[in-house]
Amino acid sequence: MLKLYHHPMSAASRFARLVLGEYGERVELLEERPWEKRRDFLALNPAATLPVMIEDEGPAIVGASVVGEYLDETRGVFQRDKRLMPEKPIERAESRRLTEWFLVKLDGEVTRYLVRERVFKLEMRPEAGGGAPDASAIRAARANLKHHLRYLGWLAESRDWLAGPRLSYADIAAAAAMSILDYLGEVHWEEEPAAKDWYMRLKSRPSFRPLLTERIRGLPPVHHYTQLDF
Amino acid sequence: MLKLYHHPMSAASRFARLVLGEYGERVELLEERPWEKRRDFLALNPAATLPVMIEDEGPAIVGASVVGEYLDETRGVFQRDKRLMPEKPIERAESRRLTEWFLVKLDGEVTRYLVRERVFKLEMRPEAGGGAPDASAIRAARANLKHHLRYLGWLAESRDWLAGPRLSYADIAAAAAMSILDYLGEVHWEEEPAAKDWYMRLKSRPSFRPLLTERIRGLPPVHHYTQLDF
Repeated sequence: MLKLYHHPMSAASRFARLVLGEYGERVELLEERPWEKRRDFLALNPAATLPVMIEDEGPAIVGASVVGEYLDETRGVFQRDKRLMPEKPIERAESRRLTEWFLVKLDGEVTRYLVRERVFKLEMRPEAGGGAPDASAIRAARANLKHHLRYLGWLAESRDWLAGPRLSYADIAAAAAMSILDYLGEVHWEEEPAAKDWYMRLKSRPSFRPLLTERIRGLPPVHHYTQLDF
Repeated sequence: MLKLYHHPMSAASRFARLVLGEYGERVELLEERPWEKRRDFLALNPAATLPVMIEDEGPAIVGASVVGEYLDETRGVFQRDKRLMPEKPIERAESRRLTEWFLVKLDGEVTRYLVRERVFKLEMRPEAGGGAPDASAIRAARANLKHHLRYLGWLAESRDWLAGPRLSYADIAAAAAMSILDYLGEVHWEEEPAAKDWYMRLKSRPSFRPLLTERIRGLPPVHHYTQLDF
């Protein structure tokens, strides 16, 4: 049995959940607030990051890309044309580059700040960093998002899927991150029609359904969040 | 033929060079100053990060972990007991976790700041961020390094190699980062004898030699940098 420590507003966690969903794996979800630095959670992952996956009470599998590689090696390779990793090493390199782009670079320039300022601070105690959102952090993140959305649009325009002719981890990673930004109403989809069309295709997949029904207490999603044709 | 865009003071670049060295691959090294954001380099990697590897004029292979996976898939799998990835998926997960720890987490908390303040700023034009080092950034990075050195010591004490019974990417990643911090005289090895012993073993490998002979103009290394028994 698989267990996944996650948070609904963590793009890396959503990536892991979507991959598990695509491969039809059942998983026990355990919500974790990483900023609380819970002792038992730090014992699993001293970096205190999400996601952390456990299979059959084994050692912790830590971080989105590590979980992704593990699931590819233990599930993906048996999935034939549903495998989320391209077949050739050079194509896999492109899928991995973009997975890192959306889960690390976009996160470090956009997602992390918007989520912290607009969501986590509502839940954090003042001594843990809670309180009023920092308007300048939000402004900077929004400016960065413009560039990322343009890049996503360019990729969606130039290729069938983000990393090439087939759906891959790159799409799952980008959709995981964009779905959080979309929940918060931060994405101006009308500016990049190809990105919007790509996201509509991703959002319509059965693996996406559980994510679209989740709600953050006190913070409803933007009105089009669950609409498959928005 | 392989080409590698790198910088001598980039831990991620050193990781790629060490892996290539371990596998006996010849590579053309091209030094890149990523902060200059050279147009041709941005065309290869819009994130402007190092390393970037090219094989036979093919598409760019971007980033240390992506280069690492590519080299494992195209070289490592044929290396039998010299392969730098453990055989089992769950053991690979631990090697990948630590590779990310030393190339991403340590970099973001320590290496990047010390290298920028103490090395890159000497070479940068003022309008690109050059100038006097920021003492508070250096102080914060040094405080963080204490924790990382303790963790490295604990790993070296508890296991034969960092990720388990065999040399793996985890060791190469940690040694790549530590070698830069050691060049700058930032590592108090005497505080963690097991880490020191582990680093001595790594440093003695033939793959390390080219790194130990490189010099940064105007910034000689700490006196013990090239000593194999320090």
